[in-house]
Amino acid sequence: MAKQKKGVAVTRESDFPEWYQQVIKEADLAENSPVRGCMIVKPNGYAVWENMQQTFDKMIKALDVQNAYFPLLIPLRFISKEAEHVDGFAKECAVVTHHRLEKSPDGGLQPAEGAKLEEPYIIRPTSETIIGDAMARWINSYRDLPMKLNQWANVMRWEMRPRVFLRTSEFLWQEGHNAFANAEDCLADAKLMLDTYAEFVREHLAIPVIPGEKTPDERFPGAVNTFTIEAMMQDGKALQAGTTHFLGQNFAKSCDISYQDQQGTEQLAFTNSWGISTRLIGALIMVHGDDDGIIVPPRIAPVQVGIVPFIRKDDGKEEILAFAGELVAKLKALGVRVKLDDSDKGSGDKTWAMIKQGVPIRVEIGKREVAEGKLSHVRRDIGRDSKTSCTQDEFVANVLAMLDDIHASLYKRAEQHRDAHIVDVQNLEQAKAFFAEGRKGLVRMDAALVDEPAYAEIQDEYAVTSRCLPFADEGRKVIIGKAY
Amino acid sequence: MAKQKKGVAVTRESDFPEWYQQVIKEADLAENSPVRGCMIVKPNGYAVWENMQQTFDKMIKALDVQNAYFPLLIPLRFISKEAEHVDGFAKECAVVTHHRLEKSPDGGLQPAEGAKLEEPYIIRPTSETIIGDAMARWINSYRDLPMKLNQWANVMRWEMRPRVFLRTSEFLWQEGHNAFANAEDCLADAKLMLDTYAEFVREHLAIPVIPGEKTPDERFPGAVNTFTIEAMMQDGKALQAGTTHFLGQNFAKSCDISYQDQQGTEQLAFTNSWGISTRLIGALIMVHGDDDGIIVPPRIAPVQVGIVPFIRKDDGKEEILAFAGELVAKLKALGVRVKLDDSDKGSGDKTWAMIKQGVPIRVEIGKREVAEGKLSHVRRDIGRDSKTSCTQDEFVANVLAMLDDIHASLYKRAEQHRDAHIVDVQNLEQAKAFFAEGRKGLVRMDAALVDEPAYAEIQDEYAVTSRCLPFADEGRKVIIGKAY
Repeated sequence: MAKQKKGVAVTRESDFPEWYQQVIKEADLAENSPVRGCMIVKPNGYAVWENMQQTFDKMIKALDVQNAYFPLLIPLRFISKEAEHVDGFAKECAVVTHHRLEKSPDGGLQPAEGAKLEEPYIIRPTSETIIGDAMARWINSYRDLPMKLNQWANVMRWEMRPRVFLRTSEFLWQEGHNAFANAEDCLADAKLMLDTYAEFVREHLAIPVIPGEKTPDERFPGAVNTFTIEAMMQDGKALQAGTTHFLGQNFAKSCDISYQDQQGTEQLAFTNSWGISTRLIGALIMVHGDDDGIIVPPRIAPVQVGIVPFIRKDDGKEEILAFAGELVAKLKALGVRVKLDDSDKGSGDKTWAMIKQGVPIRVEIGKREVAEGKLSHVRRDIGRDSKTSCTQDEFVANVLAMLDDIHASLYKRAEQHRDAHIVDVQNLEQAKAFFAEGRKGLVRMDAALVDEPAYAEIQDEYAVTSRCLPFADEGRKVIIGKAY
Repeated sequence: MAKQKKGVAVTRESDFPEWYQQVIKEADLAENSPVRGCMIVKPNGYAVWENMQQTFDKMIKALDVQNAYFPLLIPLRFISKEAEHVDGFAKECAVVTHHRLEKSPDGGLQPAEGAKLEEPYIIRPTSETIIGDAMARWINSYRDLPMKLNQWANVMRWEMRPRVFLRTSEFLWQEGHNAFANAEDCLADAKLMLDTYAEFVREHLAIPVIPGEKTPDERFPGAVNTFTIEAMMQDGKALQAGTTHFLGQNFAKSCDISYQDQQGTEQLAFTNSWGISTRLIGALIMVHGDDDGIIVPPRIAPVQVGIVPFIRKDDGKEEILAFAGELVAKLKALGVRVKLDDSDKGSGDKTWAMIKQGVPIRVEIGKREVAEGKLSHVRRDIGRDSKTSCTQDEFVANVLAMLDDIHASLYKRAEQHRDAHIVDVQNLEQAKAFFAEGRKGLVRMDAALVDEPAYAEIQDEYAVTSRCLPFADEGRKVIIGKAY
């Protein structure tokens, strides 16, 4: 009998986009909702986001960033002001026009005519303008600087082609807005926040990134410099995993963020902004997943060790669950996040659920194991080849090192993949050939080439964009390619 | 020279509502925003909310509740369905009718005519209907039960008379929705969640509550039983600090939440729901605050120990800050949240800022203290009378006990105040006299009295409501009074 395939229905090789959707479904991470373009983040997915959030939140608090909460709605006049200044301002957003419902003739409900708002509101696509408005009020003296504010919140941009985690009308994110008295400190801080993102993504999501600066055409509107960390997915496309923007005095000017310096002179502040979002869950899937499903990096995994009891017709059930219970207690005492699946599902289904949910280490305990005082364990990143038998105490003694090793292996594998798929070219003909041949990966070339007309043609024809000028090349090179 | 009053401009006695607003302003907790009825929760206020959230989140996770995230917008048809069933359905809500802006003739922006939604959305006043819709999909078998879901999110209800923390158009909260196979478990769980709220509020916010059941007129629409914890504010009014609802099969019926039982028969589930919100910050202010400002209970205080260095013209500055720095390190090692104010503000201003922000313990370190190897400390709940001098090591050895003692003292003070302001009456004449005389507090009387016509008159005339049938009186008594 052929081994039954219980992983994901399609492979990465055969259909990467479909594989992505299936992984999310099989791991129970999220689903589409009855609201157009909006997702429901299910408990398994939300637990990953919570761990990301808590980890990153500690990192920014160590940098003296303060969290606050600003209104969901933005008065239209705030946006109009911005629209005047910004060409190509994104106008797709949810507009609130009424503040009451009334019974409709057909017995349902409709917006109440008498409750039309004088000034419509939009649901925040970002909180930039309303945070700027507050900063203008809160910053008065040089003593108030630096001011570092962050918000964890939901935001909304009407998406016509939504894709779970990657592009949804509503998503969760953090946006930070820092203000300084001088340009140097502000610019240095924008780079520090990028370093913080890179460290977070590297040390907790096991994702290697290319930190660099955006080319002028990819800069955030109003920014003097936009910095980015670019990650490579397994299909060779780039994904911008985090950005920070040095806004100079542009934003301070439009929001009137000024302060009295030590000499009593009124000065404009310098500001930067920075953000990451639930997109990172999409990145994590596309960087680490395999044909069996997602692999969750251990440091942010909601379940780090999953235990599957193998019980046939209740034979030895009590002993097996008692043995497993002991292990749970020992692992919890170590601070390991552990889950024992003692439901009445079959052990095969339990095993496959843990594989598809990407639990880093799976432990199997059956009657024979208990009799021998042993357990078997399997690493999710390696699979059944890693299956090892040892005593409970040996496992407990090694588990933290094993989790670290899984982290390191995931990182290394992603780094090797990335490095193998960045191709250096000498000219635009070679770049064009790369994309024309449909090769997988990104192209690195002389930064000056992006100014040539032939580059614009490549961009249009192959949906290629400049990803960044890597810091490592000190501005001499640019990396281009397709991106999420 | 008269002692300069630097606390809050008005006293609780002279104008409680104004005192409340002033406390929030002086402690920098929140402010009104440019969006009608919506508040900005400033860093000092948000830090309190974060601590509440993290603490309570741990408590519910220990009860196997899983967090998830549902869309901000609710399709109108979801609400229409509910509106059919529920008389007095609250129709004040933010209605989204368009998904794009366009340039208006006057050069500003307006909702784009071509982007009118076929079906309007409303911004969630609760996520009840959309969570119910998901539960109906997610629950299929008895194996899926119990299912315990919770969401931390912003919600919106259009408020005509907003009041920061207590009643704002947008607020932050958690809503939990638990489903069970049978009524007993579901009802017991609704009571367990109420106990959990009571424990949270008692052990972390130092607020004593009266747990009980709502009378039928105060029940949540669709609930079989509504349970509540009622707290008393210093002006004698009640504040509902948390509620849980046993919904029987009503909600399951309207959302079609059913499962196959072990015999393969389709059954309707039983559900309950439970919520607390940023209102709790309002409660905390009104229970513990004094004429100098808020007093933040130590276990959720963002800053538990505040250090004010007393430095005159830089004399001994280095030694003082070094001494304070040592203390900071020792306190952090103990897990104490500590803040050293080393800004260049005057020590008087620093002291008053800490008082108004309700920091539980304030430490003062001057040149003389350093010379003697000592420090002074003052308890916020007692004030200057508690000022004590001791060595750094003595302070470090005692600080945790002192924080616990402040918690206990705050709780006891609030409990004594509450008990002194619950008045037992024998009949409705006495109840009426209590409110007619404008006496401070709540009235306890026989539960049967709420069915008499004279009670309805008292309710109307004095804006009195039934707060709860306290569990302690086993349904024989009811507590009535004014409430937030």
